[in-house]
Amino acid sequence: MDGDGASSTGATPSEEMNGTGNLMDFLDEPFPDVSTYEDFHTIDWLREKSRDTDRHRKITTKSKESYWELIKSLLDAWSGWVVMLLIGMLTGTLAGVIDLAVDWMTDLKEGVCLSAFYYSHEQCCWTSNETTFDDRDKCPQWQKWAELMTGHSEGAGAYVLNYFLYVLWALLFSFLAVSLVRVFAPYACGSGIPEIKTILSGFIIRGYLGKWTLLIKTVTLVLAVSSGLSLGKEGPLVHVACCCGNLFCSLFSKYSKNEGKRREVLSAAAAAGVSVAFGAPIGGVLFSLEEVSYYFPLKTLWRSFFAALVAAFTLRAINPFGNSRLVLFYVEYHTPWYMAELVPFILLGVFGGLWGTLFIRGNIAWCRRRKTTLLGKYPVLEVIVITGITAVLAFPNPYTRRSTSELISELFNDCGALESSQLCDYVNNPNMSRPVDDIPDRPAGPGVYSALWQLALALIFKIVITIFTFGMKIPSGLFIPSMMAYHHHDWIIFKNWCRPGADCVTPGLYAMVGAAACLGGVTRMTVSLVVIMFELTGGLEYIVPLMAAAVTSKWVADAFGKEGIYESHIQLNGYPYLDVRDEFTHRTLATDVMRPRRSEPPLAVLTQDSTTVEDVETLIKDTDYNGFPVVVSRESERLIGFVQRRELTVAIKTARQKQDGVVSSSVVYFTEDNPQVAEACDPQPLKLRRILNLSPFTVTDHTPMETVVDIFRKLGLRQCLVTRSGRLLGIITKKDVLRHMAQMMNQDPESIMFN
Amino acid sequence: MDGDGASSTGATPSEEMNGTGNLMDFLDEPFPDVSTYEDFHTIDWLREKSRDTDRHRKITTKSKESYWELIKSLLDAWSGWVVMLLIGMLTGTLAGVIDLAVDWMTDLKEGVCLSAFYYSHEQCCWTSNETTFDDRDKCPQWQKWAELMTGHSEGAGAYVLNYFLYVLWALLFSFLAVSLVRVFAPYACGSGIPEIKTILSGFIIRGYLGKWTLLIKTVTLVLAVSSGLSLGKEGPLVHVACCCGNLFCSLFSKYSKNEGKRREVLSAAAAAGVSVAFGAPIGGVLFSLEEVSYYFPLKTLWRSFFAALVAAFTLRAINPFGNSRLVLFYVEYHTPWYMAELVPFILLGVFGGLWGTLFIRGNIAWCRRRKTTLLGKYPVLEVIVITGITAVLAFPNPYTRRSTSELISELFNDCGALESSQLCDYVNNPNMSRPVDDIPDRPAGPGVYSALWQLALALIFKIVITIFTFGMKIPSGLFIPSMMAYHHHDWIIFKNWCRPGADCVTPGLYAMVGAAACLGGVTRMTVSLVVIMFELTGGLEYIVPLMAAAVTSKWVADAFGKEGIYESHIQLNGYPYLDVRDEFTHRTLATDVMRPRRSEPPLAVLTQDSTTVEDVETLIKDTDYNGFPVVVSRESERLIGFVQRRELTVAIKTARQKQDGVVSSSVVYFTEDNPQVAEACDPQPLKLRRILNLSPFTVTDHTPMETVVDIFRKLGLRQCLVTRSGRLLGIITKKDVLRHMAQMMNQDPESIMFN
Repeated sequence: MDGDGASSTGATPSEEMNGTGNLMDFLDEPFPDVSTYEDFHTIDWLREKSRDTDRHRKITTKSKESYWELIKSLLDAWSGWVVMLLIGMLTGTLAGVIDLAVDWMTDLKEGVCLSAFYYSHEQCCWTSNETTFDDRDKCPQWQKWAELMTGHSEGAGAYVLNYFLYVLWALLFSFLAVSLVRVFAPYACGSGIPEIKTILSGFIIRGYLGKWTLLIKTVTLVLAVSSGLSLGKEGPLVHVACCCGNLFCSLFSKYSKNEGKRREVLSAAAAAGVSVAFGAPIGGVLFSLEEVSYYFPLKTLWRSFFAALVAAFTLRAINPFGNSRLVLFYVEYHTPWYMAELVPFILLGVFGGLWGTLFIRGNIAWCRRRKTTLLGKYPVLEVIVITGITAVLAFPNPYTRRSTSELISELFNDCGALESSQLCDYVNNPNMSRPVDDIPDRPAGPGVYSALWQLALALIFKIVITIFTFGMKIPSGLFIPSMMAYHHHDWIIFKNWCRPGADCVTPGLYAMVGAAACLGGVTRMTVSLVVIMFELTGGLEYIVPLMAAAVTSKWVADAFGKEGIYESHIQLNGYPYLDVRDEFTHRTLATDVMRPRRSEPPLAVLTQDSTTVEDVETLIKDTDYNGFPVVVSRESERLIGFVQRRELTVAIKTARQKQDGVVSSSVVYFTEDNPQVAEACDPQPLKLRRILNLSPFTVTDHTPMETVVDIFRKLGLRQCLVTRSGRLLGIITKKDVLRHMAQMMNQDPESIMFN
Repeated sequence: MDGDGASSTGATPSEEMNGTGNLMDFLDEPFPDVSTYEDFHTIDWLREKSRDTDRHRKITTKSKESYWELIKSLLDAWSGWVVMLLIGMLTGTLAGVIDLAVDWMTDLKEGVCLSAFYYSHEQCCWTSNETTFDDRDKCPQWQKWAELMTGHSEGAGAYVLNYFLYVLWALLFSFLAVSLVRVFAPYACGSGIPEIKTILSGFIIRGYLGKWTLLIKTVTLVLAVSSGLSLGKEGPLVHVACCCGNLFCSLFSKYSKNEGKRREVLSAAAAAGVSVAFGAPIGGVLFSLEEVSYYFPLKTLWRSFFAALVAAFTLRAINPFGNSRLVLFYVEYHTPWYMAELVPFILLGVFGGLWGTLFIRGNIAWCRRRKTTLLGKYPVLEVIVITGITAVLAFPNPYTRRSTSELISELFNDCGALESSQLCDYVNNPNMSRPVDDIPDRPAGPGVYSALWQLALALIFKIVITIFTFGMKIPSGLFIPSMMAYHHHDWIIFKNWCRPGADCVTPGLYAMVGAAACLGGVTRMTVSLVVIMFELTGGLEYIVPLMAAAVTSKWVADAFGKEGIYESHIQLNGYPYLDVRDEFTHRTLATDVMRPRRSEPPLAVLTQDSTTVEDVETLIKDTDYNGFPVVVSRESERLIGFVQRRELTVAIKTARQKQDGVVSSSVVYFTEDNPQVAEACDPQPLKLRRILNLSPFTVTDHTPMETVVDIFRKLGLRQCLVTRSGRLLGIITKKDVLRHMAQMMNQDPESIMFN
């Protein structure tokens, strides 16, 4: 067994310690790498962990031998931090590039900058000297399409031309996006968070985090967001970050060869993704912890923290928002809030919960329809149609025409005193409807009312269109649309609330709280949501309102259904995800779940010293189990170990090729002692104790399923053997557990896709 | 088996499901409560969880029977939130009362308010009308002791008298504190966090969270902080909150009868404690998650969040700091920071790490000396001496004379423009050493230099005295002293750094970053520390500097020793705490750790149908094991279950009293079928399958210890049986695991106190 035997053979440490002496006789070269898993299979966390400890131990032992080995061991110890640094830097850079590109392309739908075509509207007018503060949105360098083509910037003709080109650009962008996804990287569609949750829980989806997916997702994300569809870049940014994580994992064998360690890196990458999406590093770490990660040791917490820090930093250095702050929607106000305001905040929470329920139900119903009907056959057409509808309906309303994040940023801020917000400009009433600081209260002008109507329409439009948009075959995130939708609503509530009193509420605060409530209802996050919201907005004083709204929203939404949008999509797609939040409270026992059932043929087992090579090969051919238990004899059925199918296949194949005398009638021995060959003429035995896992996980048949579920969840098992009084009775796989849980919840057990 | 049979008998669900029919023949009344654990024993998490699921299932089944049961089930479901609400409210109230009392008593050392003796200095002068903004610290109602007694407020005599009374009050307070602790509640001493960590990991320390401890800790905390000792109220507040949690647990049988559920409540209570200590609800939740909790399901996360919210809210309603903000040390500045400043921030991190290492080593060495030498015999004297030294040294220096949190608050703030800070007043140089906003840079006056010297002296004094103070027999927290210590240091660094340049750094920011680095070095927190620091100070823009310093500080400190102060104290006291952060990387197997060892007598087992009552009683008398495995027969040694010692004792005692024909020679049966009594004259058999746990946890003898450690940690096991090929070989208890880990780390295995 050579230097990196452990990592390449996947042998568990116990074998190496015990079986090395008498097993070295048949194989000198390293055992081929059979430790990887097949696509759409689940990994065995305990085994991966054990392999890593083994690898670590080897490096530690070797490091005492020479300076070079010592340096190598130090490099190995630091490689985790190096990976985090690289992930943070790449994620930050990509996020910056995406932000800049989206800015430019969104504005391209309306016009172009004459001084430099690659400038966005804002950049174009910033660089212009001829613009004043009031008119900074109107500068001669920036020309709308109609103005550029016909020379007229006003009038019905120009409006229609602008409208037409707006829709055309939107259609072009979304067509490009969906085509790229279809042709190059089918996995680049959607938000990616449900799949990443599933992958982090130990599922293998090859290519989901590959280089092509990274490239295509980055490009199509820009196109999709720019097309004006009601989607955000947050979920996809998490996916992009995880792709970066996977990319850098391949640089270090520590991570690339161990699926467990790889998932630690991916958890941290998810944190970096959220960190750049919102400029919220701590919120990112919490999001990773609360929402997406499955196995999150404290070490990962610190690394995630570091990756999120680096990513936020890199983004800050790129400075796409031009304000050198980390936060996206920085709020300026620090008005205190009053106890009585908790009532509307809690109402906002209730509304958020209801909206979350509505959204999840509507979206899932639509996605199910898409899966089952003809609709699913024409994804490109669907995207084109939705983009067309979105663009046609969005253009006339100034609140939906511009990019969503731009709008949220304005709505979050208190306008009035400074009048810098376009919303206040639009209204043409510098005082809005309430006094800001020392400006006395004045009645709202007609502009405010028309703005409110437009906002209300925009809200309804966004709610409806987002239900249809999320889940289409292009990259799409939920956060921004959700925040946006809620936002308007608050605005309206605030209006009704505030008109009677004189010294009252901060509208931006209601917007923030509403956004939090809405997101809470959709995703069921609590702590991470509040942290993201207040990192996002910088409104530290408002933790309590945010918390109140988030908790209420979660309660209300939970009353209508336990699952958030991501869990619902996981279920819709039938991923084998063992949710830590589901409490299993049924009174079933391991014996009710294990295979074989009473009517089924007995369990396929190997005996330790009486199975021939041919028997094994037949068993492998006839079954598709991932592994086989090994027992003392068919009579006693006392369990001695478990052997993986892949390892068994490779071992027999190798032995047949390399080892003389191994024929079909050779007996396969799993015993520790050298087999006593009865007669000289018997064929050479094949000793395979080396690939035998001597510490398979067992439970008794009387173990309650709630305990079994707990063990599967906490230890990340792939399968577990069931015994009674030391005799092997059956096997429970993760698939069996999930199927049983689904049955118990009266759900469709057939929708679970995995092996 | 009656309604609450499951919770009162501690039977695992499997028995109830299987054995009810034929086991009901010998006991009709509920089985006595034998499910509680003995003092200084560890709990079995899996069993507690299983019992709770069972209880829950019963309530769900019953709720379908009548409306009354439905209401009861709803009340049960909501009881968790009710407990959280009560904990939050009581913790917030206690924290408010403590804050007010500390304020008053700290000022009492210097003088008294004539208009109302229960006013603190600040309150006294606030209520006075004769004071101007500049002179708000000097009002006629507030008189120093010397002024009150002799009529002179100036001069050497008055100074000496004030000095003398200051020391006298300090000694009085600390004497009262240590006496109360000694006489009424010995557990009320120290920070309490190491013990709470141990309790949360599943250890039983009776009375540690009792009512007396709560009362005495609250009172002595006020006394100890007021006495001017270098300690904070943060750790003790966590202890107080956990006592509140325990108190309210006893109101609901759901929590009082289940040690696992109780610990969920305690985790949330710890979050509430930190929330009120710093006005940092999110930081509190993270602290609970990162630092103290062991078992922290997502449900607990939400509940902690709620408890922390309520507690912060209650405190805000009491408003002890008089500024109606949640945060204790609210900072006013929002100056951006520059990339180049990262260098000093990282240096601060390095310093923080070094200071953390120094502090932990010094403090542990001192505490060990206290434990082993005569010093430990005179705790009252020790406290008096340390208080005397602290008071005598503290009075001459104005920075150490006043309360620590008051000082930190001033140091965190940028002074200059407003001149509201006493520090700036003292210096008599309104511009300090650097320009604030539009005040031009002026050289620092002599006042600044003397202030710096005093601050440097205060820093050294605080560092040294805190090492001796932490661990004394009075309530003491670390956070505030650590923050304080660091604080000054920054100030100095900032001065040296800033003098050459004109437009440079914000001193308060350096203070914050320094405090974070210092706390990071001592406690090794990262994410929770940063969140607490920025919730504490309100400085949201400074996440990146805080993160950089915290991570650096942790790295540096980890290089000198993996353990933070709390873990060091846990180890010093020999608590059976299985740290999730320790990686076990040795190549030992379960067979190396299990009992019995080769030289020891064989394992004490029961057989399923051949042990007599007398045999069992002898076994119980001769051994002190917590339970006994039950095997098919001594020959086959095939394991069928595990029986708890306490349950066995009670069952036999009850059977002897209540059941006719059970005598010493009766055979104890654990089989499922009714025993076939061979001859009529044989004594009546005793059937005990009911108390048999049919799903004991087993591993094979070849299981690597790293896996065993992982299983113990993640599943919270108390013991685990070791088998080979279905035969019972031995047992591994949590004690064995901890002893083995300690041996492997070459530590003293005898220091582990538990069973």
